Amino acid sequence: MSKITLGPMPYMSIMPTLLVGANVNGKPNYMTAAWSTVACMSPPMVCVAINKVRYTARGIEENETFSLNVPSANLATETDHCGLVSGAQEDKSAIFTSFFGSLRTAPMAMECPVNIECRLFKAVECGSHRLYIGEIIEIHADASCVTDGKPDLRKLDPLVYAQMAYWNVGAPAGKAFSVGKEYRKK
Amino acid sequence: MSKITLGPMPYMSIMPTLLVGANVNGKPNYMTAAWSTVACMSPPMVCVAINKVRYTARGIEENETFSLNVPSANLATETDHCGLVSGAQEDKSAIFTSFFGSLRTAPMAMECPVNIECRLFKAVECGSHRLYIGEIIEIHADASCVTDGKPDLRKLDPLVYAQMAYWNVGAPAGKAFSVGKEYRKK
Repeated sequence: MSKITLGPMPYMSIMPTLLVGANVNGKPNYMTAAWSTVACMSPPMVCVAINKVRYTARGIEENETFSLNVPSANLATETDHCGLVSGAQEDKSAIFTSFFGSLRTAPMAMECPVNIECRLFKAVECGSHRLYIGEIIEIHADASCVTDGKPDLRKLDPLVYAQMAYWNVGAPAGKAFSVGKEYRKK
Repeated sequence: MSKITLGPMPYMSIMPTLLVGANVNGKPNYMTAAWSTVACMSPPMVCVAINKVRYTARGIEENETFSLNVPSANLATETDHCGLVSGAQEDKSAIFTSFFGSLRTAPMAMECPVNIECRLFKAVECGSHRLYIGEIIEIHADASCVTDGKPDLRKLDPLVYAQMAYWNVGAPAGKAFSVGKEYRKK
């Protein structure tokens, strides 16, 4: 193996494709985002990095609530559209059917099979981006996409984001906390 | 579509499978992690959520450096093993061949085709977990996995983490900032 250096760049192997929902000036807005993950187990939290100049950032700070919505692969066109156009230029409130949970100000997209409703916990200044950490207040899901009380990957059909493209999830490659048991036997 | 509520839980649709490298008591240690993403574009940063009680957390705080290593699918056994066993119980320094970059204290796994070398920027207390935000100082990669100066998903063969399992990346599902242009025509 010969290693080379590529220089510092904002890189992650694979990321989730999501829509960040926020009310801006009282209207639902959805922004495509991939720089997101779980931030804490207890209490459950997620985080999402958003450029400070984004229209959506304004909404998150205005209401201190937001949502992360998981689009299925069949929503790739709508999802990508939300990344091409800013809410500052175009009203994106009609792209999805919005509904609200107990926080009342975090719009969620009915068409997305999973919706994570969040209350802002902290906004961390990183540079060009602010990392918004949100406590998960509720997870809403289409009943048809749930197995044993949890969102089911195969029913959801989420999009992987990597290298400026969307990808489907492929074949299973092993159970976690399990395949490693073979390590000793190698 | 009928929505149901699943209650708050630490959920994300899909996540990257990574190994967090840190020197603990002067020895390289690798921990499996999936709660990680990009945190900032400029300067480039990543973040990773780690339980406060983890052995790896100690190393990150000791040196204020860490690495994120991207294992290929053929390293699933070694990768999962690093999530089953704590460095407090077992010396994990020999599982991979460690090398160091300019930070000198962030061990990186030679066998992983991409290694992200980070300097700790901030540790955010969230609850059970601390969210470690690191500035990317350098990206090291196997020359054979790089196309046009960037890590190439197809050559890397990274593992997706979701639902307590590893998955391969599947078929392409559209170019980002592109497929959305069809939205108007629908």
